[in-house]
Amino acid sequence: MRVFGIDCGTEFTGYGVVEADYEARMPRLVHRAAGTIRLNKKEKTPQRLAQVYAELVALITLHEPEAVAIEEVFFSANAKSALKLGQVRGVAMLAAATCGMPVAEYAPLSIKSSVVGYGLATKDQVQFMVMRLLELGQAPDSPDAVDALAIAICHIHTAQTLLAQGALR
Amino acid sequence: MRVFGIDCGTEFTGYGVVEADYEARMPRLVHRAAGTIRLNKKEKTPQRLAQVYAELVALITLHEPEAVAIEEVFFSANAKSALKLGQVRGVAMLAAATCGMPVAEYAPLSIKSSVVGYGLATKDQVQFMVMRLLELGQAPDSPDAVDALAIAICHIHTAQTLLAQGALR
Repeated sequence: MRVFGIDCGTEFTGYGVVEADYEARMPRLVHRAAGTIRLNKKEKTPQRLAQVYAELVALITLHEPEAVAIEEVFFSANAKSALKLGQVRGVAMLAAATCGMPVAEYAPLSIKSSVVGYGLATKDQVQFMVMRLLELGQAPDSPDAVDALAIAICHIHTAQTLLAQGALR
Repeated sequence: MRVFGIDCGTEFTGYGVVEADYEARMPRLVHRAAGTIRLNKKEKTPQRLAQVYAELVALITLHEPEAVAIEEVFFSANAKSALKLGQVRGVAMLAAATCGMPVAEYAPLSIKSSVVGYGLATKDQVQFMVMRLLELGQAPDSPDAVDALAIAICHIHTAQTLLAQGALR
């Protein structure tokens, strides 16, 4: 199973592609790709959204995942930034739908629990575990790419649990 | 000048197409179309966003406007609904960008001022003036379609003012 994780942001949107072999007795996670879509601040919002959309559609098409996973967002922050983040998130979900991908959403707590084993883990702890699980020699190019890999890993772990319970396949 | 107005919503997204003849000494507004994109509640969010996107791209292509106008959103409401509305709004702006349209944003106060002459006008007052300005025999099919027409009228009025000041053309 190959999963395409997306960490949406109004300036930087991270992506990460992780593969798992479900057939193996001890499933091994394999890092396929990770990177960051950096939006041109000089562009207007519709053009920025068009850039995120075009890059995500191209990346999803290139990596041929079986699912797209994205972070659920909970806010205590202000509604204006929620609206702006929602715009990027809407376009990311549209990109997945355009590519015919199912979209799974995970809360930050679930993602950290799944990757670190502790829902309130720090950014550094998440990065450490992502690098360890994927046997990465060096850190991805941005914190957003790390988060995207973590989201993909979370989806794989969740799917494995469901599989073990006989809920999938 | 033909303007395509969009009023985004998580359930209903209104659209309205208004045309104005700038050459005339007393410019007359002409109603070209108005309607409502009703989202299927049973669908998941990515599929709903794909529906809004596909319908908006089809409608913009059909009506060949010169600009798309959309409401700026200010919230006192909670961040969760802002995020959801942002998702639809992002997809609407992407649809405009896909069609090569410039996107203008107007605050609710500006829209009401422009249509009714009073920034704190009620929904009923806005509908009354939209129907009067566009010489409509019956009300559009939803309050969202009315708002979309109001947004389009606001853009035309704003463009007319800029034109009169020599800022356009």
